[in-house]
Parts: sequence; C-alpha cells; structure tokens
Amino acid sequence: MLLPMKQFDSSDWPALAARLRRPYQAAYLALYSSLYDGIVTDPALMMVPLDDHMVHRGDGVFEAFKAVNGSLYNLEAHLDRLEASARGLSLPLPVGRRELTGLAIETVRAGGRPDCMMRIFVSRGPGGFSVNPYECPQPQLYVIATALGTPFMQLHPEGARLRTSAIPAKSAAMANIKNCNYAPNVLMKKEAVDAKVDFTVGFDETGCMTEGAVENIGIVTGDGRLLFPPLDRILAGTTMRRVMDLARSLVPRGLLKAVAAEPIPRAAVLRAREVLIAGTTINLAAGVEFDGLPIGAGEPGPVYRELSALLLEDMRSNTRLLTPVF
Amino acid sequence: MLLPMKQFDSSDWPALAARLRRPYQAAYLALYSSLYDGIVTDPALMMVPLDDHMVHRGDGVFEAFKAVNGSLYNLEAHLDRLEASARGLSLPLPVGRRELTGLAIETVRAGGRPDCMMRIFVSRGPGGFSVNPYECPQPQLYVIATALGTPFMQLHPEGARLRTSAIPAKSAAMANIKNCNYAPNVLMKKEAVDAKVDFTVGFDETGCMTEGAVENIGIVTGDGRLLFPPLDRILAGTTMRRVMDLARSLVPRGLLKAVAAEPIPRAAVLRAREVLIAGTTINLAAGVEFDGLPIGAGEPGPVYRELSALLLEDMRSNTRLLTPVF
Repeated sequence: MLLPMKQFDSSDWPALAARLRRPYQAAYLALYSSLYDGIVTDPALMMVPLDDHMVHRGDGVFEAFKAVNGSLYNLEAHLDRLEASARGLSLPLPVGRRELTGLAIETVRAGGRPDCMMRIFVSRGPGGFSVNPYECPQPQLYVIATALGTPFMQLHPEGARLRTSAIPAKSAAMANIKNCNYAPNVLMKKEAVDAKVDFTVGFDETGCMTEGAVENIGIVTGDGRLLFPPLDRILAGTTMRRVMDLARSLVPRGLLKAVAAEPIPRAAVLRAREVLIAGTTINLAAGVEFDGLPIGAGEPGPVYRELSALLLEDMRSNTRLLTPVF
Repeated sequence: MLLPMKQFDSSDWPALAARLRRPYQAAYLALYSSLYDGIVTDPALMMVPLDDHMVHRGDGVFEAFKAVNGSLYNLEAHLDRLEASARGLSLPLPVGRRELTGLAIETVRAGGRPDCMMRIFVSRGPGGFSVNPYECPQPQLYVIATALGTPFMQLHPEGARLRTSAIPAKSAAMANIKNCNYAPNVLMKKEAVDAKVDFTVGFDETGCMTEGAVENIGIVTGDGRLLFPPLDRILAGTTMRRVMDLARSLVPRGLLKAVAAEPIPRAAVLRAREVLIAGTTINLAAGVEFDGLPIGAGEPGPVYRELSALLLEDMRSNTRLLTPVF
C-alpha cells in the first residue's frame, strides 16, 4: 500500500524553498553559480543539478582557502593547484584565472564578511547520469563563501592526539588530485571522531606516512630536520608548502637543520621530537600523542610554536600573498 | 575591473529555473527527493543542495536498475547491494527497504513510462562543507527515473573492442562499495572514448583483471570455464551475478564446463575463447578484440549468444525477479 505522493512543479518553489531552510545555513554567506550566471545569498538557492557529474560521480575538483581581514590569503597557490587538479581529470576550467579571481572577490563581497572560508568547485557539469564525461556539454563553477569564526585559529592549543588510520591509502595518482572523491578521507575523519582522537594518519603499502583526512603531517626528527612526505605521494597542501617555506628561515637561526620531503616510516613518527599538522582550516597544530604514546615531551614544541607564529603573521601581513577584496 | 554581478533571491526562481532548462532534460522523467518529501517532474527542480556531502565529498552510495515492461527488474539484488554499500560508508539508510521500494515504484509511476532507467542515491545529506560526516543531521534519498530507449539493449551486436586501462585500480575496499567516488571510472570511460574502443579494462597490482569503467568482464577459457574475477576485488555487478547464475544451466547442457570467480591474469584474457561484458545499462556484450588482437574467432561466440538470450528472457519473464509497478 502506497501513500499518495506529493508532486510539485516550479510554481511550488516557495513551498519547496521553505522545506530546504535549516538554521545552520546562517553560515552560508554567498554562492556564485555559473549556471545562474550570478550570485545568490538565499541558502535555499544554493543548489546544483543532480545530473551534474560532480554530484553522482565525484567528477569535479575543488579548493578551500580563506579571506583574512578582507584579503584572500595565498590565492595563487590555491589556483595553481586547482588548475593542476583540473588537468588531472582532463577537466577544462570554465573561466580563465583572472575571471576566477574576480568571481571569488565578488562572492566574498556579496557575503559581506572580511573573514570567511571560500570554496571553489569546478564540476564536469550537468548532462546526464552516466559515467561518460563527454555527455556533459559544459563544465560549471560554484564559488561559495561561508562564515569563519577566526581565520587565525589555533586548534588544540595544548596539542593534538593522533592515531594510525585503518583506511587504505588512496593511489598516488588520485591523492595528487584535489577532486571530490573523498570517501576515504570521510572515513578517516569518522574514525578520528569515533576513536576520540583529533586526527588519524594514513600509511601506504610500504609503511610510510601519507596524510590525514584533510591535513598534511610532518615530523621534526631528533637531529632537527623538518620532514614532510614526498609531495608526489600525497595531496601537497598549500599550508604545508607555506610552512616548509617559512621553516627554511629557521635553519640559519639554528632552530632546524634542514627542511625536506622524504619518506617517513612509522618508526620515525614514533621517534619524532615534534609532529606538525598543517591544513587550510586548522592552520598549524602540534601533535603530542601518536597511537597512545607521547610525541617528544608530550607538549607543543619550539618548532611548532615558532612556525605557528610565523604562519599567522604571514596571513596577517604578507602582502605578496594577500589579494585585497574590500 | 569587475563587472557588476547579478544577484538573485528566491523571488527570482522563475528566471533561474529558465536558465537551468536544457533540451536533453526531456529524458529526465521524475525525481523523488527526501528533502522535498515528494516528487518533481520539472527538471529545473531536480537539484540537490551544494552542501550535501555527496556533492562535495562523494559521500553517498547509489544503484542503477531498470523498469522493464512496467516492472522493476532484479530490484532485491540492487537493494541488497545498496544496503551493503551504505554499511561500507557507515551511512544509515534514511528509510526502510519496503518504503524504498514504494518510493521507487511511485517515481516510475510519476515518470509515466513502463521502461525506464532508475537510479537511487543515498547521500550523507546537507550540513556543511567539511569532510566530517557527523556535521550532517540526516542522510537523504534521491530517486530518479530517466528515459530508456529499450531495456533489451544489445550493445555492439557485432562485438565490442576492449583495451587495457592505464588508470590504477581502486583499492579493493573502495571497489566493493558502489559509492559516488567514480573519478577512476570516469577516466576509464574517457580513455575508451579517446582510444575509440568500446571499453577499457583494469588490471590490479598483481596483473589480474579487475573491471571496466561500469562493467564486469569475464572470460570463457579454452577448456570451457566461464570465469569472472574474485568478487571481493571488484564491484560485483548484479548483471554479472545474474549471468553467472544463468550460466550454471549451460553446464549440464555441455556448453560450459564450470562457472567460477577466480583471478584472471592478462595472459588468460589473451587466450580466452570468449570475453563477456556485463552491466545494468548494456546487459551482456561480447568482446571480440583485446588490445588490438582478436579474441577467439574475433566474433561473438556461442556462450555469449546463449547467455545474452537467457538474460533478455529473464528480464522479460522471470516473475520472481520482477516487481510490478503499473
């Protein structure tokens, strides 16, 4: 026995829009959609067609970055990676870099907040429900601004707890591309929450560290080298790269001996003096526990403190990396 | 210099809906959305929120199946797999199996066609833009009916051309779950189109065959065994499973010696008497060329012809597997 089903058409939009509203959408500030060819600020309109292959096949790429004090931070690095990700899926960008920058700026402006989280999605576009990318006539672009408490977040000021992930690492080919195939990352985040730790950390088939759910993880070795995994095996984070650049200034000062990307076996993590966790959302965090064992002295160390301060300062005042919005 | 950007609110919906209409949407018959709690037939309303984690993280599972002569074919097998996929992502199904069947039936009815393609998506749901599944209060369900020329499609009546894929195989853990992380499959489909072959075929790190972009592939060996790859290494297709069941009836008749799932090295594909390609969209096809070399006699063989006829007959008249809609 089936209940009579409600059927709606386009004239029912006000009623449908009412059903789509949720309190947490207050954080959704503005969306640019290339399908609308304009910006919407009503969250009920922050929709994409179900037949966009990004929706049903994960056939899209994305970036997340911040507006900080009215400027976009490190935008060029994010757009470089977006272009590389799009190439990885043979996905042509629907607009040029200059226009994309303009659209990001307009979206922040429409959102009206000098600090916000920005995400750009480039999708294969609508066209059908098959796996075939050629059924989609035109890639699409969605740029969304959402609220951000503070861009200078220092997550886990007393240090973060890490644990080895049980989720198999992505293939290097897929890990290198920031695309919408994040099921393994979702499961890593879930296992961290379930295990009541802050982050879980992947290891590849050779036993070397890969990355967190949406974070890069590095170590400071006993002999003072800052190491991150080889960049062709992970998604090379913009924050990680920035931290590596900033860390080079610590070498002449004697705080570090070297900064490098090389394979990091699990044993090296266990012996590390410090563990650093880098990501666009979290900035830099210090790992103080790994699989239940203390890392180094079991508290955030000097390299973390120095690099965290340098990173936040970089976000505040490195005009070379700040694209003004307002 | 930025152009002034158009801004829309909910009262602009008629104008936005007009922008969303495309001629190919004539094939989109009806969508049930749990967010609407009802069915829409206007393609402009066939939208999902951008913040549904299925959209930006691929955090969702799906099934594709057919309505054939007014009945859903092999629905229970698809719902079994949907349940298994959802378990694989720790995604609770938003409705029970009986209700899901009812919703699928209602969606076909709203579409008004006795033959159509059905897809069910279960998403983590809207809730934000992070990777964290716990930010989503409620999983959602989208059921869409789209047009289908004939459910009894015999693709490539003269046989299909296959080629080895260059795309790394998914991890077994991910391959087993029919989730929206299809970027490798998208790239396989793309390489087939680009190489002007019909299908590309994956091989795992041990050199054994995995699957096509959205097809299962099996071989008939020189000694008359029908082999498909081990079911824990691939997405075990409902059509493949049905073909294996039907093939067992050919053993007493002497057309086959055995039906089994076991590792298939590349050399065995090259030596195969026949190659079979099975999928919900394509039904059963015969592979006649692999990496430029003829398979067997280079034309569809007797096992293919027999099984293809049995499968189409099964779709027409196996009342045990047909769920009446009209």
